[in-house]
Order: sequence, then C-alpha cells, then structure tokens
Amino acid sequence: MLLGGNLPGLMRPLLRVVDLIRKKRDGGELTREEIAFLVEGAARGTVPDYQLAAWLMAVVCRGMTRAETASLTEAMLHSGDVMDFSALPAAKVDKHSTGGVGDKTSLVVAPIVAAAGLYVPMISGRGLGHTGGTLDKLESIPGFRVNLSLKEFREALIACRCALGGQTPEIAPADKKLYALRDVTGTIESPTLICASIMSKKLAEGIDALVLDVKTGDGAFMKKEQDAIALAELLADTGKQMGKRVVALITDMDQPLGKTIGNALEVQECLEVMNGDGPEDLRELCLELSAWMLFLGKRVRDVAAGRKLAQEMVASGQARDTFRRVVQQQGGDERVVDDPSRLPRARRMETVRSKQNGFVARIACERVGVASLILGGGREKQDDVIDPAVGIVLEKKVGDAVKSGDSLCTVHYNAGARLQEAMAMLEGSFVIRVEPPPPRTPLIRKIVGA
Amino acid sequence: MLLGGNLPGLMRPLLRVVDLIRKKRDGGELTREEIAFLVEGAARGTVPDYQLAAWLMAVVCRGMTRAETASLTEAMLHSGDVMDFSALPAAKVDKHSTGGVGDKTSLVVAPIVAAAGLYVPMISGRGLGHTGGTLDKLESIPGFRVNLSLKEFREALIACRCALGGQTPEIAPADKKLYALRDVTGTIESPTLICASIMSKKLAEGIDALVLDVKTGDGAFMKKEQDAIALAELLADTGKQMGKRVVALITDMDQPLGKTIGNALEVQECLEVMNGDGPEDLRELCLELSAWMLFLGKRVRDVAAGRKLAQEMVASGQARDTFRRVVQQQGGDERVVDDPSRLPRARRMETVRSKQNGFVARIACERVGVASLILGGGREKQDDVIDPAVGIVLEKKVGDAVKSGDSLCTVHYNAGARLQEAMAMLEGSFVIRVEPPPPRTPLIRKIVGA
Repeated sequence: MLLGGNLPGLMRPLLRVVDLIRKKRDGGELTREEIAFLVEGAARGTVPDYQLAAWLMAVVCRGMTRAETASLTEAMLHSGDVMDFSALPAAKVDKHSTGGVGDKTSLVVAPIVAAAGLYVPMISGRGLGHTGGTLDKLESIPGFRVNLSLKEFREALIACRCALGGQTPEIAPADKKLYALRDVTGTIESPTLICASIMSKKLAEGIDALVLDVKTGDGAFMKKEQDAIALAELLADTGKQMGKRVVALITDMDQPLGKTIGNALEVQECLEVMNGDGPEDLRELCLELSAWMLFLGKRVRDVAAGRKLAQEMVASGQARDTFRRVVQQQGGDERVVDDPSRLPRARRMETVRSKQNGFVARIACERVGVASLILGGGREKQDDVIDPAVGIVLEKKVGDAVKSGDSLCTVHYNAGARLQEAMAMLEGSFVIRVEPPPPRTPLIRKIVGA
Repeated sequence: MLLGGNLPGLMRPLLRVVDLIRKKRDGGELTREEIAFLVEGAARGTVPDYQLAAWLMAVVCRGMTRAETASLTEAMLHSGDVMDFSALPAAKVDKHSTGGVGDKTSLVVAPIVAAAGLYVPMISGRGLGHTGGTLDKLESIPGFRVNLSLKEFREALIACRCALGGQTPEIAPADKKLYALRDVTGTIESPTLICASIMSKKLAEGIDALVLDVKTGDGAFMKKEQDAIALAELLADTGKQMGKRVVALITDMDQPLGKTIGNALEVQECLEVMNGDGPEDLRELCLELSAWMLFLGKRVRDVAAGRKLAQEMVASGQARDTFRRVVQQQGGDERVVDDPSRLPRARRMETVRSKQNGFVARIACERVGVASLILGGGREKQDDVIDPAVGIVLEKKVGDAVKSGDSLCTVHYNAGARLQEAMAMLEGSFVIRVEPPPPRTPLIRKIVGA
C-alpha cells in the first residue's frame, strides 16, 4: 500500500536512475558505466534535477572511492569537448586555486610561465560569496573580454602562449549543470564532487601538467589543514590517474594574500608584482607556483631552476610584456599595464584605525572578503553586478606593530555602498594584542604529490 | 572561485532552504519551525523539487530524532484539512497496514468494528509494486466509488459508521508531494519519512485511536523483524505524542495472508470471513485487529472482550450487513455481498502442480505478489490499469503435505496476460522439502505500544 513503491529486482529494466541513487545511498560503489550513465543524463537533461539532487546528497553523505572519483571526473570531462593542443611545440601547463581572499596569483603566474616558453591555457571562474574570481579581476581592465569562444581561446593561446577565458558551453557541460545544482542543494562540500568539478574543467584544457593551490585557513573553503591535504591528495591522484603531472601546494589563507581585496585593486597589485615590487607574500607565492609549473612542464630540471627562471621573467620585464600582449589580444586597454591609473577607481575612501597600541594578532580573513562583497566587489547571488573599483587595501598585516590611531586598512567605495556595515565588519576583523604574536606558519605549508 | 558558493553566516537571511538541507546533512536536529517551513514549502510549491529531494536524502542518510519525526508528522498533517468528527457519539478508530501480499483485512475489520458501534473513517491507498491496495480491491465491486469528496466521506461515515475512501487533495497535500518525490529519488526507506507519511494521513481522519498492522517477512516492506519493530515503535510513539491511543501488531508476511491474491478474489475471500468461514490465518488476524480497535476505542474493557464482540458481529451477520450498507452507500452493487459470483471473474485458469512429494517449506511471498502484478492485478507504474478479475488462489500453504501432481495454486487470467512468465515465477516460489518444516512462527509476532 503506502510502502510498496519499489519494484522487486526481478522486474527492473537495465540501469534505472533510482536504483543507482539507492546503491549510493546504501554505501555501494558505483561502476564506471553507472557513473557515466548519470553524468550523461545530467548533461543531456534526461535525468531530472530532483534525481540528480538526491544522488548528489547520497554522494556527500556516503562518499566515493578513488576509482569512483576518477570515473566521475572522466565522465564529466567527456560530457563536452576536450581541447587538443598537442600540435603546439611546448608543454601546456595550468594552475588552479581553490579560492581565497585577495588570491590573485593567476594574473601573475600565467604571464611568467608563458614568457618562459610554456603554454598556459587557463579557464577560470567568477567570484561567489566571500572569495574573488579571476574573470572578475580581468574584467576590471577596460574592454577585457573573458567570454572567448573555443576558437578565440585557441587563437589567443597561439598568439600569446597564454589565454585567459571562462567556461564555455562546450566545456564539461555536466559540471555546469551539477555545479549549479550543488550550490542550491547543500552538496558543495564533498571532496569527490569538488575534485571532479575542478579536474574535469582543467583536463578539458588539454594540459600536460597542473599545479594546484589548495588554500587552508579562515578565508579558505577548507578551514582545516587536514581537509585541505585530503582534497589535495585526491586532486593529485585523480590527475595522475588521467595521465597528467600534478602537484598541489597547501597554502595559507588565514589572512588575505597581498594587501588588496577588490577587482581593480588586485589587478594593480599584480602589476606591481610583475614590476618586481608588491607585497612579499604575494610575490613569494607567485614565484613558487610559477617554479612548479615550469618544472612540471619540463622547462627546467628542478623547482629551484624554475624559481630562478620565473624571477628572470619578472626582472627582465618579459612577464609584464606577455601580460600586455594578452590584454591586447583579449580586447583590453593595454595602456593599463604601464599606467594603472587607467583602471576604474572608487570615488571615496575611508580609513579603519586602530583603537589601541600593540600588534596585529589576527585578521578574520572571511570577514574581510565579506566586507568587500558588501561594498559591491563581489556577488551574493550569481546574477549580481560587480563594482570593479571598490575594495579594501590592508595597511597592516598579521605580526605588524600598530599604534592607536594608525590606519589598519582603507576602504575604497562608491556612493550607495553599505559603508557602515563594511566598516563595522572590518573593525571587528582586526585582533590587536599587546604581546607580539608567535612567528607565523609558513605561507606554503606543505607540498602534496611531488 | 569554484568553491565559494556559500555565503558566510553573517549574511544569511532567515531560514534559507539550503541552510536547512546543510544542517540535516551535517547530522543536526531541525527545529519544529524549520521543519514546518520546509513542509509548507513542499505543499505550496515554493521549495523546488531538487531542494526537497536533497533534503529527503539527507534525512534518509542522517536520520531524525523522535522530536523531529513528530514535528514532521504534525507539519504534514497541518499542510491540509484535518477532519473533525468530535460531534459523533462514539470513538473514531482506524487500522493501517504497512502492506503485504494477500493482505485484505481492512474490508473485514472496518465492518466488524462499525457494526459493534464505533466509527471507522478509513482512508486507504492503492497497490504499487508487489503489494495490493484496499482501494483497488473495493473497486473490483461493480460501481463502488472510493474517490469520495470530504463531504461524501462524512455522509458515508454518519450513515454507515464506516467510510472507505482515498486520499483527497485536501488531506496532507505535503505528503502527496513528498511521497511522489520519494518514489523516484530512492528515499522511500526511512522510518521517519514512512512514519510521517502514514501518521499525517491517519491523523487527518480525526481519529481517537489507531491499530497498526506492521508486516514483516519476505512479502513485506520490512523484511527483518527488528526493522518492523523499530518502525512500529516510532509509529506508536508519534501517534501518542499527538494524543492518540495507538498499538502496533507485528505480523507475519513470510507467505501470503489467506489463500487469494488479486482484487476480486480477495473481496470474495473477505466475504467468506464475514460469513464465519475463510482461511484460518486471515480470520484470526481480522478478529485480533478488530479486538484491538474495539479496545482502544473503549467499546470494551479488554482485548479478550473485544475479540468476543468481534466474533459476535461475524456470527450474527451484523458485520456483513454493515459491509452491504457501505457498498450501497458508496455506489457499489450490494448484491455482490450475498452473491459473490457477481464479482468480475477471469475467463481462464491454469494450475501450478507440485513435481515432488513432501511438504511446503516456503512460499516466496514477494514473488507471488509479482506474479499477480504480471497477470495484470497490480501496477508497475502509477498510471497502469488493473484487471480486477485476475490473480492467484493458493491451494497449499507452508507446512501442508503435497504429493507429486497436486495443485499448489491456480492462476486466474485473461487473454493477453503474460501467463508463462507468471507461471514460471509461481513454480519457483514454492519450496518443497521431504522433511516437514518446523512449526511456524506465530502470525502475530509481537505487540508494540500496548
């Protein structure tokens, strides 16, 4: 009567979606064919959203094995086009970050590595919530087009050895479908689903090697280092199963990276780094990521040599020249590179000041990201419009000595912004203590998969 | 970037669906208000199916506490109309079975209890899969209408002290919505969800007391007795929390109940029981269920007295007279009651014979249900049309001695039925052994909540 909703096994047709959901719900291991069936159904729209949602939740609750994760990644990759750049005369390498606050390394490492002779076909995402996105940063450069077709992407890559685009409809459509669904069904937080989402898109770029920047700390998605390491291991293992060279750096996101948060402000900071200047932590991470990319792309014999080569690309101005060509190629105003004042600027500024003497013990990183979002620099919902000019410039970072009345950070805002709310959030973000804090954990906490 | 899909707590509006899904996913306990919010959203269509599906799967994977189960039941109950029969001069009692093969007691116990002076407002379901449904059985009586409006249901109850109807759009619409979704998302098998589904509909009948028949064994939904007991405890506890007198009988479904499976055949067998005849197991269970209903409805002082009164209602013909009035009231051909040959009859019969001497050790109960379904007596899909005449009559039951060539069962079928398939399934259902089987476990295995 009420409970008789399921036909006995005797009468089942082959591969019913509900049976696959039930198998995962009961902790079973899905086969490659079963996973491919579901993923194809997602991409083609033949499996309804409610069945996908139930399956995603079962995956979150029961987990997936390494073999299932590889099958899922492979199925999502092959739900769309896979670019083939094998005819190009050097290795194709990319970098991917799991997202953070003030995390802007892509704009620096892509030109460095391309300048050094490798190809960087980089497909990035947009910001959502407290973290920023590479595409939004690039679009703060007047005219810069990130919505390249696959043909334009290929042309840009050949012309500049570097192309910076967004996900096209042809790339991993199953991921596009599942990601949108995960966002509204509480099924984001699954290492397997995160891994398949990241790796299916990255592998569609036709790359030989990938360097992963897995963030950990208050401003990262993975607050706990052990979770970040587990995800990094899964990502590296999945990439290797697909025949790619992959290394993951576990890096600190307990305070924002660099000094700026906000799209145009971050582009400006990246230009400083390309000029051999900029904040030390950002410079350091950009060089290290570039070094690993050059090493995995077999441009150099070891990471130390990669680091040296990356430094040369900056010192010689070749990284900046490559970035200028990329901006021009993708329709942006390349004069920005030598004259950052051409970037959009907020009309107003306000300063957050310390109320006491001491040392900065902590900066609540996620709150700083939210403050930038509140000012209009990020999205609460997918269709929110971003103000590229607004953001925050940190005057002090963790460990710095401060006196009462010193500026902790400057808020760049435009009329109509929720300034008071952002100011209050920032004031609460800085923890000042009398004692100097213990030495910080290193920026690069661990290297996985090397 | 890719992982930033969730806004930090600081920015959340009140009661976002995705947060409630995440809370349950992480094993948290939802409040009464949170559950009511989701259930109202389901009933009104303001929460999309994919969010409900993800939440249902999280409930299946993480479970719910007794308090959550009660809140869910209450919210589903109040998603629609709750009937009020408090003005009627005697207690309102009902019986609910979790479903089995040949499980037809409703048609007997409702008239017995009504004849004894209590009111039985019974809302039943249809068969799906290998189990039958009370509504389908009633509809095999020519003209019998089960789709009563609430007004007609009330009229029938006042006229006959018994009304036999189906779920109307006004009754627990949230359950209707969620049940359809559970069927296709692999989220049927949750004690909490089963409990809320059953109890919300039963409590909407405005009853004072409820007797539950929780089936266990091969032909039941709960194959394991411990699972049946756990469900029974949850049902009884939830009913009591809502102020009702509730008892659950754990009863055997390791072989079909009675001798007939199939809609008209089962009605005929019920008439035999109302005439003081019929198979012993069916007669026994009908009397026991009636006895408990009469006791919980305070018509008698103890269950033994209830049993005696139920027997009197059968022996005196008053149960049969009540059933005749109900059939008439609901538009059916009441001549069926005294002349069962007016029920639809299949045109053809075929016999399944034993190939050896020995004893019936086992009858694979679920397979017998599927055989009836294959003949056209049940539904594979919700919109399948049923042939009321077809079915199976068991000649032998577990423990019976058989000789090679003896009839084990008779198949009633019409042209176009998948006879060979059904015959093969039935032949494989009877396990004949040389040794007599051990004494059977009692039909009523346990009583919960008394």
